[in-house]
Amino acid sequence: VPSVPALSLIELCAKLNVSVPEGADGGRLFEGVGSLEGAGPGQVSYVGGAKLLKQAAASKAGLLLVPIGVTVEGKLCISLKDVMGGFLTLLEHFHPSPKREAFVHPSAVVGAGAVVGERVWIGEGVVVAAGSVIGDDARLEAHCVVGPEVVIGAGCWLHPRVTLVEKVHLGKRVEVHSGAVLGADGFRYEVARGRLCKVPQVGRVVIEDDVEIGANTTIDRAGLDETRVGARTKIDNQVQIGHNCVIGSDCVIVAQVGIAGSCRIGRGVMIGGRASIKDHVTIGDRCRVAGMSGVQNDLPAGSDVIGYPAMPLREHAKFVWFYRNFTKLWPTLRRLLKQGDA
Amino acid sequence: VPSVPALSLIELCAKLNVSVPEGADGGRLFEGVGSLEGAGPGQVSYVGGAKLLKQAAASKAGLLLVPIGVTVEGKLCISLKDVMGGFLTLLEHFHPSPKREAFVHPSAVVGAGAVVGERVWIGEGVVVAAGSVIGDDARLEAHCVVGPEVVIGAGCWLHPRVTLVEKVHLGKRVEVHSGAVLGADGFRYEVARGRLCKVPQVGRVVIEDDVEIGANTTIDRAGLDETRVGARTKIDNQVQIGHNCVIGSDCVIVAQVGIAGSCRIGRGVMIGGRASIKDHVTIGDRCRVAGMSGVQNDLPAGSDVIGYPAMPLREHAKFVWFYRNFTKLWPTLRRLLKQGDA
Amino acid sequence: VPSVPALSLIELCAKLNVSVPEGADGGRLFEGVGSLEGAGPGQVSYVGGAKLLKQAAASKAGLLLVPIGVTVEGKLCISLKDVMGGFLTLLEHFHPSPKREAFVHPSAVVGAGAVVGERVWIGEGVVVAAGSVIGDDARLEAHCVVGPEVVIGAGCWLHPRVTLVEKVHLGKRVEVHSGAVLGADGFRYEVARGRLCKVPQVGRVVIEDDVEIGANTTIDRAGLDETRVGARTKIDNQVQIGHNCVIGSDCVIVAQVGIAGSCRIGRGVMIGGRASIKDHVTIGDRCRVAGMSGVQNDLPAGSDVIGYPAMPLREHAKFVWFYRNFTKLWPTLRRLLKQGDA
Repeated sequence: VPSVPALSLIELCAKLNVSVPEGADGGRLFEGVGSLEGAGPGQVSYVGGAKLLKQAAASKAGLLLVPIGVTVEGKLCISLKDVMGGFLTLLEHFHPSPKREAFVHPSAVVGAGAVVGERVWIGEGVVVAAGSVIGDDARLEAHCVVGPEVVIGAGCWLHPRVTLVEKVHLGKRVEVHSGAVLGADGFRYEVARGRLCKVPQVGRVVIEDDVEIGANTTIDRAGLDETRVGARTKIDNQVQIGHNCVIGSDCVIVAQVGIAGSCRIGRGVMIGGRASIKDHVTIGDRCRVAGMSGVQNDLPAGSDVIGYPAMPLREHAKFVWFYRNFTKLWPTLRRLLKQGDA
Repeated sequence: VPSVPALSLIELCAKLNVSVPEGADGGRLFEGVGSLEGAGPGQVSYVGGAKLLKQAAASKAGLLLVPIGVTVEGKLCISLKDVMGGFLTLLEHFHPSPKREAFVHPSAVVGAGAVVGERVWIGEGVVVAAGSVIGDDARLEAHCVVGPEVVIGAGCWLHPRVTLVEKVHLGKRVEVHSGAVLGADGFRYEVARGRLCKVPQVGRVVIEDDVEIGANTTIDRAGLDETRVGARTKIDNQVQIGHNCVIGSDCVIVAQVGIAGSCRIGRGVMIGGRASIKDHVTIGDRCRVAGMSGVQNDLPAGSDVIGYPAMPLREHAKFVWFYRNFTKLWPTLRRLLKQGDA
Repeated sequence: VPSVPALSLIELCAKLNVSVPEGADGGRLFEGVGSLEGAGPGQVSYVGGAKLLKQAAASKAGLLLVPIGVTVEGKLCISLKDVMGGFLTLLEHFHPSPKREAFVHPSAVVGAGAVVGERVWIGEGVVVAAGSVIGDDARLEAHCVVGPEVVIGAGCWLHPRVTLVEKVHLGKRVEVHSGAVLGADGFRYEVARGRLCKVPQVGRVVIEDDVEIGANTTIDRAGLDETRVGARTKIDNQVQIGHNCVIGSDCVIVAQVGIAGSCRIGRGVMIGGRASIKDHVTIGDRCRVAGMSGVQNDLPAGSDVIGYPAMPLREHAKFVWFYRNFTKLWPTLRRLLKQGDA
């Protein structure tokens, strides 16, 4: 891992497009970023909000990025309108993404007729099937398997041990984490010929631009048409997406979510950890599904739901209050029920 | 991927064992199959049931397979008793399974003394431990790892990156999808020697004929005896099956199900997505466990259960009605409880 | 797999530190261990508790280890204070862990500058990044990928196809099962620069001594500091641990558990299968979280909780009784509600 040279306060302020704080030593060097708890005098941290002021005061960070109007007594601070944006600038500076460069490890097996773009990095043991296409600046790390009829867009990043089984199309700059399996068979059996038969899954998976897919997540190939994940949608670890699902752009899908087959998920939908969506359910744009919920029915755009079966947040809160206070309510309820029975 | 030649209507009808529809052009060519929405004039689709008639009328498919008695106006139709069977025949024709042929990629490592059958396909980077046995016509795709004391039956198909850790016996025609791990240690610790000790897991996993196992599913090796999955049982993605479980034949186990250790699951059991079965539970033949349920107690044969703790479908429906309508019921209930307390 | 020579009863008793049972043939040979159901006359089994006496009487095992005071009529028995300890001694004798020896398969790729200790076993296709460190007696099985800035302690055992993506530190004797992914990016996006931005994850994962991690489990790298799993903690299959979590020592985390980001879990905590912990939750020492629960709030040390939202065991039992008996209670409750409405 190449080490990144330290930045002087002057250089750092230039990167952030601000002037050097009055009275500060412009030559002071910073060699990295850290959290409020973890950063030392040579590192930069940030104050995300007012409730972190106490932690900020106790921080050993040499420099704090703070929202405009916020000050932390006795600390060198830089005020920013977009604190997170500024912190990302420094984070990306000190931890640059790996360079994209042309490289094919001798242990990789690239099939005849595979089309490989410019500056593509193909790591140890990577397998690329004949006829697949890899765009410019893509990075395929160790042991990735790229099966037949796969297209990988420019700038994609496949971490070690990603499998694109078959008929997978990745847009541009898609990032897939280790152990993810895209394009395995959907799960469909039908009674035919007098018995339960597997229905061959011959469709494809399409992942649009700038999608991120977590470790050990699985996204199945469609039966006949396509399973699709929209642009900029972010998918966490161990998510399961069934065949024929169409998921819109700008969604956030947290770890261990399960989306059964043939769902239609709109744009900008947020699905909390471990939530489940029944097959063939349609969820409208900008819905928010709380973690651990089970959605069994279609949801109109903008719905906020929770629970199993999932219901609107407010209605659910009443039931949860009843559930939480049941021990207190039960003696009276039991007496009423006994009287009612008498 | 080899392309399959188009079929004339005459050839297609011969495959389906029907006569060419009256007045139709027997020489018309069809080059594939598709869904009602996705198929074009050169493709064949099917009408699975009467509720799809509207979609069928709007379909651009050149030919529709329809149930006897159903007609779709203005469309070329073939009536069949077994529509799905007919569609499968065409699907399998246009999308044949890979040929089984003798092949060992030079990057594969087949241990000394491994017994490899006829027409076995061993892909890139596959590792087969010394002493393991691979039956005829088996197909091991890229990066599969076959550990010690493994037996793979004739006609098995291991997709890329399947791991059979140790002491795994696959019957005939078992299909395992990418990322699945069979034969890892079961999870057992016991207090002994004055502390929590790992109990070495020295049993095996037996998968009977015609089982299918989904992507990233895990099936643990038994502690001492065997973990077993019965013939023709179909297991979806990200399922976890604990050590010592014995699962009957003809079961369907949907994605993200968890079956804890030492369960006994009968024949023909259906377990919906994300359901959980407690350890040491016995589930009788032909039970149906709804998705997201949690089964804590033994179930007699033929039970239909739902919920957590799982209960019979009808009883659960009443509670769910109460839960769903709680917001409406609560003002009265609260008043009654207050009066009762007074 | 090397076979282990049989033990005579004399040798076996010596291993267990007991005298040969009176009247028994000290030369009788035992060639392995088994369960009560599975063991034959040449094998040793054990009676874990009094409720297994019936099974023990029906067992065909040639020798039974029994708790002091327990006898099984007509069976050769050895009484032990620590039955499980004794059984483990025999189990480990007949099923020894693989020897640690210096070995590097020619297909492995060990980067320049990687530091590899004594007696390290590096299997087929293993990839070790330049600059990583592997301690003495470590065992890396086929297709493991060890990324940059990884340290593997002495005596670690990585089963086939484990991925340590980046910045992962394993203590001593850590065992990781197949398909596990440690050190992938945490899941964090923040609004900055006017849009949702990925926050680069530059922290590390620290796994302390004697931890075990199950198949296809994922443990994410911290955002800035570290994700940590304490010594002797045991983690089952398909568990998801989010970035920045700090998990104490001696915990047991059963399959399919999900722990969201930035949780603090104390020492000796037990988390049942499929339980979920919300992000930023703190769980005190020795808490027990029942399977399938959802913990949303901090728990003081020693709490026993169940349900979703999780609550104390006793309180929850009342609600579950209501839920289970709802069908019987409902006619009266409905009448009361109707009367109340009138």
